[in-house]
Amino acid sequence: MGKKKDDYDRTLENLQIQWVEAQAWAIEQGVRTLIVFEGRDSAGKDGAIKRLTEYMSPRQTRVVALPKPNERETSQWYFQRYVPHLPAAGETVILNRSWYNRGGVEPVMGFCTPAQHEAFLREAPLFERMLTDDGIILIKFWLDISREEQAKRLAERVADPLKRFKVSPLDAEAQARWDAYSQARDQMLAATHARRAPWTIVATDDKKLARLNVIRHVLTRLDCPGQVHHRPDKAIVFPADQAAGRLAP
Amino acid sequence: MGKKKDDYDRTLENLQIQWVEAQAWAIEQGVRTLIVFEGRDSAGKDGAIKRLTEYMSPRQTRVVALPKPNERETSQWYFQRYVPHLPAAGETVILNRSWYNRGGVEPVMGFCTPAQHEAFLREAPLFERMLTDDGIILIKFWLDISREEQAKRLAERVADPLKRFKVSPLDAEAQARWDAYSQARDQMLAATHARRAPWTIVATDDKKLARLNVIRHVLTRLDCPGQVHHRPDKAIVFPADQAAGRLAP
Amino acid sequence: MGKKKDDYDRTLENLQIQWVEAQAWAIEQGVRTLIVFEGRDSAGKDGAIKRLTEYMSPRQTRVVALPKPNERETSQWYFQRYVPHLPAAGETVILNRSWYNRGGVEPVMGFCTPAQHEAFLREAPLFERMLTDDGIILIKFWLDISREEQAKRLAERVADPLKRFKVSPLDAEAQARWDAYSQARDQMLAATHARRAPWTIVATDDKKLARLNVIRHVLTRLDCPGQVHHRPDKAIVFPADQAAGRLAP
Amino acid sequence: MGKKKDDYDRTLENLQIQWVEAQAWAIEQGVRTLIVFEGRDSAGKDGAIKRLTEYMSPRQTRVVALPKPNERETSQWYFQRYVPHLPAAGETVILNRSWYNRGGVEPVMGFCTPAQHEAFLREAPLFERMLTDDGIILIKFWLDISREEQAKRLAERVADPLKRFKVSPLDAEAQARWDAYSQARDQMLAATHARRAPWTIVATDDKKLARLNVIRHVLTRLDCPGQVHHRPDKAIVFPADQAAGRLAP
Repeated sequence: MGKKKDDYDRTLENLQIQWVEAQAWAIEQGVRTLIVFEGRDSAGKDGAIKRLTEYMSPRQTRVVALPKPNERETSQWYFQRYVPHLPAAGETVILNRSWYNRGGVEPVMGFCTPAQHEAFLREAPLFERMLTDDGIILIKFWLDISREEQAKRLAERVADPLKRFKVSPLDAEAQARWDAYSQARDQMLAATHARRAPWTIVATDDKKLARLNVIRHVLTRLDCPGQVHHRPDKAIVFPADQAAGRLAP
Repeated sequence: MGKKKDDYDRTLENLQIQWVEAQAWAIEQGVRTLIVFEGRDSAGKDGAIKRLTEYMSPRQTRVVALPKPNERETSQWYFQRYVPHLPAAGETVILNRSWYNRGGVEPVMGFCTPAQHEAFLREAPLFERMLTDDGIILIKFWLDISREEQAKRLAERVADPLKRFKVSPLDAEAQARWDAYSQARDQMLAATHARRAPWTIVATDDKKLARLNVIRHVLTRLDCPGQVHHRPDKAIVFPADQAAGRLAP
Repeated sequence: MGKKKDDYDRTLENLQIQWVEAQAWAIEQGVRTLIVFEGRDSAGKDGAIKRLTEYMSPRQTRVVALPKPNERETSQWYFQRYVPHLPAAGETVILNRSWYNRGGVEPVMGFCTPAQHEAFLREAPLFERMLTDDGIILIKFWLDISREEQAKRLAERVADPLKRFKVSPLDAEAQARWDAYSQARDQMLAATHARRAPWTIVATDDKKLARLNVIRHVLTRLDCPGQVHHRPDKAIVFPADQAAGRLAP
Repeated sequence: MGKKKDDYDRTLENLQIQWVEAQAWAIEQGVRTLIVFEGRDSAGKDGAIKRLTEYMSPRQTRVVALPKPNERETSQWYFQRYVPHLPAAGETVILNRSWYNRGGVEPVMGFCTPAQHEAFLREAPLFERMLTDDGIILIKFWLDISREEQAKRLAERVADPLKRFKVSPLDAEAQARWDAYSQARDQMLAATHARRAPWTIVATDDKKLARLNVIRHVLTRLDCPGQVHHRPDKAIVFPADQAAGRLAP
């Protein structure tokens, strides 16, 4: 086990070094990068983001996790409250959950109407197309966890006093409404996967492997000149349009 | 002349009363209204906005005239800096110039590249469609002034110490580049006139008539129940797609 | 009567011309000006602000009338929500009501506790001292109306369909709690009048005269070189520390 | 060494658990906490903040590291740009550098005038007094590093590809102007140490010990009922007014 851990640490460090180089290049070139992290509760979003951002430039990086909209925001254009956070030249913005709330938790939990859900699936590709037309690099991760692994992690969370602020009243629903979440996910991936705004699936039952592959994929998408990338493992990371039968059922 | 003035004042007051009633209804219903004022320098935007907003609810009304973008904003998604100002439920937002800078002054004065101009004409209808799909009422006015009248007003401005802050270094170009502005306007109206985001042309050589007709048109678009509207004069106010031969050459 | 009106219009225009010149100088010099308008309901704040700002530079002028604080704001440092609106170099910010809500309407209507009221009277001079130490010119107007004139104006408001958005549920209390408002005002003026943050009282039963004198006082405070000012009428405009017996009882 | 590391990890985890409990209590009680981290380059601010915030509630915690002020901000009230970040009820805000830039790097590097420096030392206690009068808990850390240790860390940084974004053109000056920095620090601590806004010195040559003691001190200041705290080590953490002869010369 000690050895495996060392391998992971060394690989992670190497990837982080490459990522630091890539960001330095992106800052110099004025490249704008927007990375969306989505996935069920406990799928590993926080952990992946932590490793991805550990050594990034604080001035050119923002991790954004918006609270629930207030009443005024609820009445605004659906995408409005996300827009002020979009990246300027050289910036990398990481969304820890995003407008895709309306493609998952909201319809499943009844926090939006079916009409709002449908409208969202229609409008999201238009919104994202405007951003990519404008030159923003948009990377969308779906972190995919199995039902058993989620059950295990949610149980561990409750028992861990350090994870007190990760526990949410919605956790109980994650397992109870597993199938509704799967269905919403499939519908969302199908409706919002686009050539320049593709979804990338990362299987996260193995957390460490997932974290490495997230950074590998980001490096591939940035494609900073002079870097030779190890492509992420195809069994773990794959495009949404090749997901048939591979997503957690 | 005294009599004519009285007529204008009385008509204006009646329209403002109707408009106050209509806004009270819009606030109650949660209607969101976005009114864009565009037009050449001295076409009468400020004056029309002043009469339109004179008695509106200060809490639910915002007039927005954005300064030139700073360097960071220049590198962002083109529409980003306008989005925070979009109306929430019950609000009326009035844009005194808007994203259409990139359809007029920017390409004519060389403040954007031809590629940016083209991209704008392609993207603006998508952006506006997202807003109208979301239920926002979008009213776009093009205030149309003749070349002679503009020359007269710009000259008067320079002589009037109260209009000091209206005088701009760009004024001189308004006449010099008249034809380029006309061409940009025609291209813009053609590319961005849409069923739910239509342009309405208001001829403004007669300022007072124009102001009355702006309010009349807004009332028609709001269509508050129980109000009987006098349609604006067709010779003065007309849809952009019926503008052939009627716009200032 | 016609003649008197002409006099007013001519005097107003002359003052506005001087004020435009003074603002041009303030912009050039980077002078920061903060003008606070306080006074009972219908004392004439909106009307005075309208004439003062009519020809000011839109880019360097902001009129700020904050809505009621939301729940989060209520829990913050009391002055926090006003601070983002403070003037930068060359700017004039006009506060239509201000932090002095806590010196008047809040204690009188029971919207704050007596302890909060007391704390406010203690803290406001410190806060303002920081701003004036920093070089901001702070002008504070108390518009003073008599009980009879207020009764008349509030009654007219209700009857005027154009003033629909000026009518507030608090209006009824303005007369009913007249004495409590007088007492709060006296306490506030005594506690927060300071050498560099002085209160200036303007008697406003004569609206037009009041508007002229507001501009005259602002000109005197700005003291733009090369301008010869007519000092405002001492019977109408006077410092708070010389108010004994002259304020509306 | 392995054992020592285990001790640190176990102690850190225990402190973090207490801190999570304390924050849960602070959220429930609506306590507002503002923690300022100051210190020379490489004194360990980022590392201490990382451990302090590792398990905190993301929704009620903000780490704020402001970029250099833009031109407009430079002309505003000096404290203005910090104010929007102050904590609301239940929130903990951590400032990674703060208004104390004007007490250290700015005067030493000549980025402000001597008069601005003096004014800052006079105004900062007033500003902080307003915040603590309003009930905000203000904790101010000065992380104190020795000259030799700083030299070592800055050299390591340059050699480490993961620390690329920590390297700054100002690093070279940290050693060259060591004495000027010491003098500015002494002046700042003397002028701005106050009963309710005290400075706490943490010696950070031993990074790990420093991190533990930072959390210990925060726990002591929060004083959440039912927690028994181990006071931080007096040789490492001490109040600024008992610092004579103990600060890095």
